[in-house]
Amino acid sequence: MNDQDNPLVIFTPSGKRGRFASGTPILTAARQLGVDLDSVCGGRGICSKCQITPSYGEFPKHGVTVGDDALSQWNAVEERYKSKRGMINGRRLGCQAQVQGDIVIDVPPESQVHKQVVRKRAEARDIVMSPSVHLYYIEVQEPDMHEPSGDLERLIDALQSQWQLENVRADLHILQSVQPMLRKGEWKVTCALHQGDDANPPSIMHIWPGYYDGTVYGLAVDLGSTTIAAHLCDLQTGDVVASSGIMNPQIRFGEDLMSRVSYSMMNPGGADEMTTAVRDSMNALFVQVAAEAEIDRALIVDAVFVCNPVMHHLFLGIDPFELGQAPFALATSNSLALRAVDLDLNLHRAARVYILPCIAGHVGADAAAVALSESPNTSEDLVLVVDVGTNAEILLGNKERVLACSSPTGPAFEGAQISSGQRAAPGAIERVEIDPVTKEPRFRVIGSDLWSDQDGFAQSILSSGITGICGSGIIEMVAEMRIAGIVDGPGLIGSPDQTGTDRCFLDGRTHSYLVWDGTAEGGPCITVTNHDIREIQMAKAALYSGARLLMDKFGVESVDRIVLAGAFGAHISPKHAMVLGMIPDCRLEKVTSAGNAAGTGARIALLNIEARADIERIVCEIHKIETAIEPRFQEHFVNASNIPNSVEPFPILAEVVTLPDVNFNTAGENGAETSGRRRRRRGQ
Amino acid sequence: MNDQDNPLVIFTPSGKRGRFASGTPILTAARQLGVDLDSVCGGRGICSKCQITPSYGEFPKHGVTVGDDALSQWNAVEERYKSKRGMINGRRLGCQAQVQGDIVIDVPPESQVHKQVVRKRAEARDIVMSPSVHLYYIEVQEPDMHEPSGDLERLIDALQSQWQLENVRADLHILQSVQPMLRKGEWKVTCALHQGDDANPPSIMHIWPGYYDGTVYGLAVDLGSTTIAAHLCDLQTGDVVASSGIMNPQIRFGEDLMSRVSYSMMNPGGADEMTTAVRDSMNALFVQVAAEAEIDRALIVDAVFVCNPVMHHLFLGIDPFELGQAPFALATSNSLALRAVDLDLNLHRAARVYILPCIAGHVGADAAAVALSESPNTSEDLVLVVDVGTNAEILLGNKERVLACSSPTGPAFEGAQISSGQRAAPGAIERVEIDPVTKEPRFRVIGSDLWSDQDGFAQSILSSGITGICGSGIIEMVAEMRIAGIVDGPGLIGSPDQTGTDRCFLDGRTHSYLVWDGTAEGGPCITVTNHDIREIQMAKAALYSGARLLMDKFGVESVDRIVLAGAFGAHISPKHAMVLGMIPDCRLEKVTSAGNAAGTGARIALLNIEARADIERIVCEIHKIETAIEPRFQEHFVNASNIPNSVEPFPILAEVVTLPDVNFNTAGENGAETSGRRRRRRGQ
Repeated sequence: MNDQDNPLVIFTPSGKRGRFASGTPILTAARQLGVDLDSVCGGRGICSKCQITPSYGEFPKHGVTVGDDALSQWNAVEERYKSKRGMINGRRLGCQAQVQGDIVIDVPPESQVHKQVVRKRAEARDIVMSPSVHLYYIEVQEPDMHEPSGDLERLIDALQSQWQLENVRADLHILQSVQPMLRKGEWKVTCALHQGDDANPPSIMHIWPGYYDGTVYGLAVDLGSTTIAAHLCDLQTGDVVASSGIMNPQIRFGEDLMSRVSYSMMNPGGADEMTTAVRDSMNALFVQVAAEAEIDRALIVDAVFVCNPVMHHLFLGIDPFELGQAPFALATSNSLALRAVDLDLNLHRAARVYILPCIAGHVGADAAAVALSESPNTSEDLVLVVDVGTNAEILLGNKERVLACSSPTGPAFEGAQISSGQRAAPGAIERVEIDPVTKEPRFRVIGSDLWSDQDGFAQSILSSGITGICGSGIIEMVAEMRIAGIVDGPGLIGSPDQTGTDRCFLDGRTHSYLVWDGTAEGGPCITVTNHDIREIQMAKAALYSGARLLMDKFGVESVDRIVLAGAFGAHISPKHAMVLGMIPDCRLEKVTSAGNAAGTGARIALLNIEARADIERIVCEIHKIETAIEPRFQEHFVNASNIPNSVEPFPILAEVVTLPDVNFNTAGENGAETSGRRRRRRGQ
Repeated sequence: MNDQDNPLVIFTPSGKRGRFASGTPILTAARQLGVDLDSVCGGRGICSKCQITPSYGEFPKHGVTVGDDALSQWNAVEERYKSKRGMINGRRLGCQAQVQGDIVIDVPPESQVHKQVVRKRAEARDIVMSPSVHLYYIEVQEPDMHEPSGDLERLIDALQSQWQLENVRADLHILQSVQPMLRKGEWKVTCALHQGDDANPPSIMHIWPGYYDGTVYGLAVDLGSTTIAAHLCDLQTGDVVASSGIMNPQIRFGEDLMSRVSYSMMNPGGADEMTTAVRDSMNALFVQVAAEAEIDRALIVDAVFVCNPVMHHLFLGIDPFELGQAPFALATSNSLALRAVDLDLNLHRAARVYILPCIAGHVGADAAAVALSESPNTSEDLVLVVDVGTNAEILLGNKERVLACSSPTGPAFEGAQISSGQRAAPGAIERVEIDPVTKEPRFRVIGSDLWSDQDGFAQSILSSGITGICGSGIIEMVAEMRIAGIVDGPGLIGSPDQTGTDRCFLDGRTHSYLVWDGTAEGGPCITVTNHDIREIQMAKAALYSGARLLMDKFGVESVDRIVLAGAFGAHISPKHAMVLGMIPDCRLEKVTSAGNAAGTGARIALLNIEARADIERIVCEIHKIETAIEPRFQEHFVNASNIPNSVEPFPILAEVVTLPDVNFNTAGENGAETSGRRRRRRGQ
C-alpha cells in the first residue's frame, strides 16, 4: 500500500485510526471506523453536525506529522455555512474536508451522536445521549409511472439506502402529509424517526420539507401524589430547556394515596374523575413548560413518566381499587410504551409515552426511577436511598443485592396537615435555629438570603411576608425544638415553666410554640402545635421503620451512606433529619442529597433508550418488601415514634449537640404518643 | 416397547399415527403428532371444540383391529356437555377420551383449527381458516404479596405456559379491565388474541370472565366507487353470517373517481368532507350488517378493506390530488395494518383493520383482492379477469406472468347516467330478449321468476312494479337491440321506418326505443335513448381497450378463458357481453362469472392471515400497465366504440345469432360516434 495515496487518519478522543484513499471525506472515514461523529443531513454540507477540529504539526504520541495540506482546502459549502451560521475558528465540516495526508482529527463533544449530558453531582453518572427520536435528512426518488410505487415506500427506501434504517414504518398521519411535504421540499425532506422498541418497529413521526434546522423535545415527568414536575429536554443536546411544576389536582380527592383509593371506592366514576383531573392538569403543565421554553408544544415527541403505583393506575385510567387492599395487586407491573394521544395528552400528534416499570404494589415506577438515577445496584458500599414524599420510597443495597419498600409517610413532610404548613414558595420558613439557652428562634425564609435576626431581613421579605413553614422548614423546626429542650423524646411540647420561655403557651389541652407573630402587620401567627409534632412523628416513624426493616432484611445494623432524594430532598438538612430520627444514624458527611432523583431517573430514560432496558432488568432483580404485612415494620414504627434522646453512634453530631433528656409527659413513657396516635386515626 | 401399554393411535383424514402411553388423552396425542384438532379451553372439557369420532372394528388398510375398550369410558364431563349442549352420537371429547388400545380417530371438519370454508365455484380455491384473532381459555395464578407482579403479567405468563404464546402484549384498554375480569372469572378467563403481524406483536384485545362460549366476527368490505358491500364473517367457522350493501355517499361529490378528485381540488376541505362521508356511511353499514346478524357490533374485531386507489386515499384521509394527474403517485402502495378507531370506525374498541396493497396509481387494492380470489398467477391457461365496476380492473396472465391495468368505464354499467337506469333492486329489469322479427321485447324483473310475456307476470310484480333497468339489464338490452337490428354498429337507433317498429320513436334529434310504458298504471315509461347507447358504448370501449392493451403487452391475440367479476359481474350474460364487445372473443363456455371477486378476496384475507402475506408478494410480481400513457389504449378505444357487426371467431354465438349489417347513420362510418363522444366530454 502506498502511504501517500492512503494517508493515516487518527481520531481523538476515541483513538480510532485507519488508512483511507486520498479524497475520502472525514465523515466517511469516521463512519467506516465506527467513530461517533454526528450528521443529520447525511454528508450533504447542510446540517453542520459533523464539525471536527483538525490538528497540524508533530504528533510523536501518534507517530505522525501533519502537514498544512493534510486536508482539502476550505470550500464554498463551509464558507457559506460559516458566514450564515457561524463556526468556531479552526473547525471544519467533516463531510466537506477530505483526507490528503496523514491527519489527526478531534471530534468535539457536541459533534458526537452519543454526547454526554454532564450531571453536577460527583457521584452521579453522566447521561449518554441516545434518545428515542432522531432526525434524518433524505433525498427521495421521484415517482415513475412505469415503476409505480407509493411516495411513502420510496421515502422508506431512501431511509434504508441513505441511513441503513431497516423495517421502517410510518404513523397513519404521515400518509396524509407525505405527498405535499415531498413536493414542497422538492423530494428532499427531514424525518423524525422513532427508533422503535421490542414491541414496535421504527416509525416515521414527522416530515419537514427540505432540511429542518430545528430540534425536537421530550418531557421527563415526575407525577407525585402532591406535585407534578416536568423537565423539558432538547432531544439532540440533552439540555433541560425548561422545568415547571404544578400541584396534583387529585389533592381535592384526598391528601394521601389511600384517601384517593377510598374516594374511588366510595364514589362511582371517582377513578375516572381523578384520571381526567390529572391528565388535564398534566396538559396545563405542558402548556406552561412549553411557554417557558418558547417552543411549540407539537415539537414534543416523547415523554417519560415516573409515579407511584396509585398515581400510575389513575393516570392510565385503571381503577386503583386493588391497591387499597392486600395482596395489593397491580394491574400491570411492566414498563409501558404508549401513545400520548391514548392518554389524552396534547403533544405532537404521534408523541410516544414511556412509563417506567413498577417494582411492587406499593413500590412504583418512581422508585424504579430512583434506582435508575442512584444505581444502588452498582454501588460498592451499602447505600440507603430515601425518596421523601407523601409516600416514601426506600432502597437499600449494593452491587450484590438491592431491597426496596415504600412507607406511607403522609403529606406532613410536604407541609400539609401542619397547622402553619405550606408548600415551598416565597414567604415560607425553610431554615430554623433555636438558641438552646434563650429558646429564641431565628429562621430564613424562601426568597431571602438573610436570617431573621440579620439587618435588612424585614426589608428583604417585604414582597412576600412570612407566610408559613415549608416541608424542610418543619423538619428543622421540630429537630431544633428537640435540641433546645422545648419538646421531649415522646413528642410533648413543654409548658412555659418546663421550658423557661413564654413562646410555649397552652393551646387547648397541649402546648404550642410561637415561631413568629405577624398579626401586627396583618400577617399570620406562625406556631408549632403539639399536633404538628405528632404528624411529623408519624411521618418520620414511617420513614425510619421502612429503612430499618430493609436493614433487618439485609442483616445489617448500619449503612455506609445515605442518599436523600425527593422533590424537597435537596432542601432537607441531614443533621436535622438525623436528630429527628427520620433516617438511621450515619456519618453526617456520608449523607448526601440527590435532589429529585425520580425526576432525574425519568430524564435518563428519556435521553437514553438503552437505560429503559436497563431499568426493566434492574427492577426484576430488586427484592421487594411489603411493609404492610411485616410485623417488624409495626414494631419499628412504635419504637420510632419517639424523637431520640440518644444519638450514639453519632460521632459528628455528638460533637455539636447533646440532646436534653427531658420528658414533659406525666402519664408515662409512651402514653401520650399512643393516645395521640389513636386520636389521629379516629378523628381525621 | 410393549404394544399393549403403548397403543397405536391413527388419525384420519391426516393419516398421522403414533404410539402413546395408555391413558393419554386423544387431544394430547393429536397435539404431539401435529394433528389439526381444535381447542379453546386447552383440554379442560369446557369448549367441546375437540370433538372426534372413534372408529371400531377391523381396519385392514391401517393394519389394526379396534376393540370396544380402545378408549376410556364415556365420562361425566362428556355426559354433562352432551346433556346441556348436545353432541352427535358416536362423538367423544378429545380431551376426555383416553387411549387404552389401538384406535382410529376421525377428526371431523368442524373440529379442525384450519378448517376449510368451501366455496361453491369449482375453479375457486377453498379458504383455509387462519384468522387474525383466536380465543384462548386460561387459568391465571393469583397474586402473591411476596412475589409481586402485575395481574396482566401473570395472565400473559398463563398464555405462555398454557398455549405457548410468546411475546404477547395487551392493548391499553385491557389494563383497565384485566383486574375486574380476573376476579369475576375467579382467575379463569377467555382472551381474544390478535396474532400480530410483522410490525406488531401478538396482543390481547378482549377478556371475558370464565369460559366465553361465543365467537368473534370480522368484516370483509368492498369499498367501491358506487356501492359499499360488507360481509360479516364468524372468525371461528368462517361462515358469512350477514351481507349488506349501501350506496357510496361520495356519489354526491362526483359519479366517477376523477370527478371526486376534481371536487377535492376545487373545494378546500373537500377531501376531508368525502373522508367523513365514507367513514360515516361505513359505520351505518356496520350497524346494518350487525343488526341483520343480530350480534353486538363490539364483537367485530377485525376488518379487511379492498378499494380502488382514489377510494383508498379518501378512506384513509389522504387527499387524492396526486392521483388526478401524471405520474399518478400513490401516497402509499403497501398493505396497511391499522386500528379501526384511527379510521373512526365503530367496531370493537381494539378492532384491527387490514387494507390490501395497491398495485399502482390506477390499479388498487380491489384489483389485488381479485388477484387473490382468482389467482391468475397460478393458472395453467391464460386467463383474463375483468372486474366490472365504475372503474374496471383487468388482469391478464398465467403462472408465468400477470399483467394488470384499470380502465375508467364510468358508472353506466351500474345503471347510472342511463335514462331509465337504476340499481339492482326489486322492480329493475335484469334480463331482456327482443324478437328479431317483431322487435317486441320480453324481460324479467328482479323479484319475479317470470318473463313479462308469461301468465301471472303482472301479478308477480305487483308489490314492486317495473321501475327501471339495472346494470346487467342495460347490457342485455343494448346487445339485444343490436342483435334485433334496432341499433347499428356505430350505435345509432334506427327510425320506425328503418326498424319497422313504432317502439322506435323520434326523441329530440335521435331516436329512442320504448321498452315498457307503465304510465297508465302511474309507473314510469321505460325507454332506451340514443344517449344511453352512447354511454354503454363508452363504457364497453374502455373495458375492451384495457383488455386488448394487456393482450398486446402479453403478445397474444386471444385468451383461453375469461372471468367476469364485479358486484354485478355475476349477473352479466357472457353472450350479451360478447355481442356488445365488452370483452374479447372467447369460447362462450370459457366465460365464467366470479361474482364479487374483490369482496371474496377481502374475505380470504380476513379469514386467512397467511393470504395477506401471499397477496403482498403477488402484488410485487404483477406488472402494471398505465392505460393513460399508452398510445395503443387510445387507438383501441376509438376502434372499440362500434358494436361489432362481425363476431368471428365466435363459434357458439355464431350458431345462435347473425348480427345484421345495418348502418342508420347517413353522415359516415364513425361520425356519429365521434360527435357523440365530443358532446359528452363537453357538455356533461
